Amino acid sequence: MSDTPITILGISGSLRAGSYNTAALHAAAELLPPGVRLIQADISDIPLYNDDVRAKGWPPSVERFRKQIAEADAILFSTPEYNYSIPGLLKNAIDWASRPPEQPFAGKATAIMGASPGAIGTARAQYHLRQIGVFLDLKILNKPEVMIGGAGDRFDASGKLTHEPTREFIKTMLVALQELALMLKHHKK
Amino acid sequence: MSDTPITILGISGSLRAGSYNTAALHAAAELLPPGVRLIQADISDIPLYNDDVRAKGWPPSVERFRKQIAEADAILFSTPEYNYSIPGLLKNAIDWASRPPEQPFAGKATAIMGASPGAIGTARAQYHLRQIGVFLDLKILNKPEVMIGGAGDRFDASGKLTHEPTREFIKTMLVALQELALMLKHHKK
Amino acid sequence: MSDTPITILGISGSLRAGSYNTAALHAAAELLPPGVRLIQADISDIPLYNDDVRAKGWPPSVERFRKQIAEADAILFSTPEYNYSIPGLLKNAIDWASRPPEQPFAGKATAIMGASPGAIGTARAQYHLRQIGVFLDLKILNKPEVMIGGAGDRFDASGKLTHEPTREFIKTMLVALQELALMLKHHKK
Amino acid sequence: MSDTPITILGISGSLRAGSYNTAALHAAAELLPPGVRLIQADISDIPLYNDDVRAKGWPPSVERFRKQIAEADAILFSTPEYNYSIPGLLKNAIDWASRPPEQPFAGKATAIMGASPGAIGTARAQYHLRQIGVFLDLKILNKPEVMIGGAGDRFDASGKLTHEPTREFIKTMLVALQELALMLKHHKK
Repeated sequence: MSDTPITILGISGSLRAGSYNTAALHAAAELLPPGVRLIQADISDIPLYNDDVRAKGWPPSVERFRKQIAEADAILFSTPEYNYSIPGLLKNAIDWASRPPEQPFAGKATAIMGASPGAIGTARAQYHLRQIGVFLDLKILNKPEVMIGGAGDRFDASGKLTHEPTREFIKTMLVALQELALMLKHHKK
Repeated sequence: MSDTPITILGISGSLRAGSYNTAALHAAAELLPPGVRLIQADISDIPLYNDDVRAKGWPPSVERFRKQIAEADAILFSTPEYNYSIPGLLKNAIDWASRPPEQPFAGKATAIMGASPGAIGTARAQYHLRQIGVFLDLKILNKPEVMIGGAGDRFDASGKLTHEPTREFIKTMLVALQELALMLKHHKK
Repeated sequence: MSDTPITILGISGSLRAGSYNTAALHAAAELLPPGVRLIQADISDIPLYNDDVRAKGWPPSVERFRKQIAEADAILFSTPEYNYSIPGLLKNAIDWASRPPEQPFAGKATAIMGASPGAIGTARAQYHLRQIGVFLDLKILNKPEVMIGGAGDRFDASGKLTHEPTREFIKTMLVALQELALMLKHHKK
Repeated sequence: MSDTPITILGISGSLRAGSYNTAALHAAAELLPPGVRLIQADISDIPLYNDDVRAKGWPPSVERFRKQIAEADAILFSTPEYNYSIPGLLKNAIDWASRPPEQPFAGKATAIMGASPGAIGTARAQYHLRQIGVFLDLKILNKPEVMIGGAGDRFDASGKLTHEPTREFIKTMLVALQELALMLKHHKK
């Protein structure tokens, strides 16, 4: 069963160049189990959602994002917490991608991680994202919940995740995500 | 006490021209109690949040929005629900406006309403917005909770809110918002 | 695969004799797909959680409940909403059942339904229960979300669910729950 | 204005004798600003909610609790987190107290604190309690949010809160709660 290759689409909730969350996706790319590859989405050029615009056709950035989601076997969100919820820019990308006719997120194996300088990490954002996932029909891993607090001490100046226990934790999450994706894939056949 | 004039900043969570939520703000503008005026914010040209951009200075659209919030006595959100939460574009505007040094939302009297075609209305979005409001230190009215379900039957083709009980409900909310804003204003003195 | 028999443990969040939610479980028992049976838990005699009491050994009612959970393949919650969340008595039963050493809820296929006299149904309670389920590692169906509003018109005076579309909806949910339970069971082997 | 005496009703979400949360209420009782007194509720003998029982009259423990709430100017919850939400036993006490005809929580100034051995503290429980508070019409302080993580190191063996910054934090919260209670009291006149 583990011969089936799995593609994960990584989606960062932060646009700044030195983002810990984007860096956490880079770390994930180094920690993939055999048979898994990770592609990173770019949501920086997705416009604000406007249903009048949508009625005229998908903006190219949205079309690309929707295609990446549809082709992926699994989704990995890596997101900061802004104002006790997920960043608006991440939600905005989700709002575009989720519109009919096809809803590309439906049924995808999904994991969530988040990095933040503070202690509580990104817990509040992650539970909001989980509620959003009910509508999207994302199959979100319950565990492990990867909340990287005190990020300033776990990444080095170049953005490399150097904290070994966190690397192990992400590895565990990726194995669980692969397993979930394979189970869902196998089941659909 | 009610001689003190109150300014409400209305913020719609939808950008489409025929939005029920923008229309609900228009209805609110017709239903204001004496001593209250309502200004409507425009968040359609606020860029996606990027902390690297912010470091270089506020984009003009953000600066304008932050100034409107700071000058208002009260905030009135009128928002649809997208994917079981508030629209990303509304959250994105909040994310920009909330950044230091000043946090203009802090301490503002606030009310939330939402219109939707479906039956459950916008309940899930409103509770997410309330959690966001804890961080922003918004003083949000507990009641009335204005959730306008079945919006297609309550607004006419021109976008006018014609459903009399809903108009009365919004009026009740506006009076409560005025009272809260006055109490907070009086208390600060 | 569908030859494997599945046992669902039904848990009602209401203790009153005429409860719509208990009645909805009775309806579910009539609507089971082949290969599925439903047992109903009794949580009416579970004491208030007290860790000092637990340290002395499981109360018999808790031991019975934990055993029923452990032996079930799937869980079906049917719960009213009290004060915008799940009833304390249901949460209290969960609090007891979830304590170590074994956590019997872990990995169980789960569905949620709720009946209420009002229009919004039990949405707020269901999302709280879903968040609780992340900790419990419940595998909760995303869809269908069964929220039976206007319950007074859908059940007859004897407590029988007479509203045909709701019966169909529950049937759909039970089939999805069976399928999920079978997938998880098959996967564990 | 501060001549008006204020009574806070403290409600602990834990029944065990050595509870950190009950101990945090004891600490609060030592840290009260002038003009404030704190009474502690006992919810250990409140039965599981059953509407059939309620129809026959309030159980004595519930009647006592409802009276204490009604007579208090402010509420202070001190609660652990069980399974990512508030303890069922606390919710159960709220469920009883909130039933008609009078809803004694309505309009009360309220603060929330929580202590836990872990790092995230009781954040998830507190946001659930805040949503419950919308229905109850509690006027809950946005700030400070008192989440006492690593409680094992902040209380001594006798249950005394010895961590000075946490004591200062609770003091700040109590002053804010007094101020809110006085504002609401003054406003009602």
